[in-house]
Amino acid sequence: MTRLRVHSMSISLDGYAAGPRQSLDDPLGVGGERLHEWMFGEATTDPVDRELLDRGRDELGATIMGRHMFGPIRGPWGHDEWRGWWGDDPPFHHPVFVLTHHARAPIEMGGGTTFHFVTDGIHAAWERAAGAAGGLDVWLGGGASTVRQYVRADLVDELHLAIVPILLGDGERLFDDPDGTPTGFEVDLHLTTSAVTHVRLQRRR
Amino acid sequence: MTRLRVHSMSISLDGYAAGPRQSLDDPLGVGGERLHEWMFGEATTDPVDRELLDRGRDELGATIMGRHMFGPIRGPWGHDEWRGWWGDDPPFHHPVFVLTHHARAPIEMGGGTTFHFVTDGIHAAWERAAGAAGGLDVWLGGGASTVRQYVRADLVDELHLAIVPILLGDGERLFDDPDGTPTGFEVDLHLTTSAVTHVRLQRRR
Repeated sequence: MTRLRVHSMSISLDGYAAGPRQSLDDPLGVGGERLHEWMFGEATTDPVDRELLDRGRDELGATIMGRHMFGPIRGPWGHDEWRGWWGDDPPFHHPVFVLTHHARAPIEMGGGTTFHFVTDGIHAAWERAAGAAGGLDVWLGGGASTVRQYVRADLVDELHLAIVPILLGDGERLFDDPDGTPTGFEVDLHLTTSAVTHVRLQRRR
Repeated sequence: MTRLRVHSMSISLDGYAAGPRQSLDDPLGVGGERLHEWMFGEATTDPVDRELLDRGRDELGATIMGRHMFGPIRGPWGHDEWRGWWGDDPPFHHPVFVLTHHARAPIEMGGGTTFHFVTDGIHAAWERAAGAAGGLDVWLGGGASTVRQYVRADLVDELHLAIVPILLGDGERLFDDPDGTPTGFEVDLHLTTSAVTHVRLQRRR
């Protein structure tokens, strides 16, 4: 059965998944790159982190992401020039469903990635992604607000967080619901590497 | 030099240091006892957790706590019957400074613990506690809002968190400043036991 998985999502000790004021110059918000240092650079990445990163990418057949993860543009798309942060050959290699309020034609990129724009909400995006995943799982890429919406709707099957031992001080929180967070998850992986603490939660069904 | 230390303070993955709606029946808020299970019971506590708990209690000469950590009573003290959650022989064995808006005479308990009530703010409490600590450190006991105030005032030298791999869903957040958190800390301990992840931060001075 196709599952919806959050994979190695970085959060700081104070709960931020991105810095404040995302822009073209700061795709992860101001200071947000500190949350992702642990996963870049083959030479510097801890082997356990590397293995967990690689393993989490297995068996993914589609991706869902929020518009802020796709790009810094807000409101209407304008001249359709923006084609994501990732260049001509994005690292997804499968269909990617971008949540937006503004319709746009699909963009076929290199390497098997096609960006589809979904304007009718998170449930519709999940159904389309699950249908396109060919029996594999769907990666819920982010950002924080998108993950939060799916957790709240109880659609997330696996939530794998990488807690970075820093205080970011400001930014976008992963858990920020005034009404609270669904809590019916069980830990099935919990370990600390030289860089981060991995906690993987499975939804009890 | 006397330092102000937060010691093994439990927080959930979603950032809560206590459950919601603290009361006489729920000293840690509803569900909050789940944050503290890892430290109770000699037989069940992981030896590494036990050692870190014991080590963190060394060389403490005084304690500061917020009024909610002292008891569930709000507003004026009434008939002064409340003498803390801990019975006749509290586990502190040194002077304890309770932050409150309502003056009250000190209470001398058994085993060397005396509760002092400080009405003139966090800086005054820190100065009195540091003076009473006899050259040892001061434990900043909690709760969340008290720790947050001291972190914001840049008075905390060491911040040792125990991240419990659960989602609590609701409660009192440790990091909850709209203006952000001071970030000038460095990690000097970061490990996961069978129960929790310890992260100890030292203030850069």
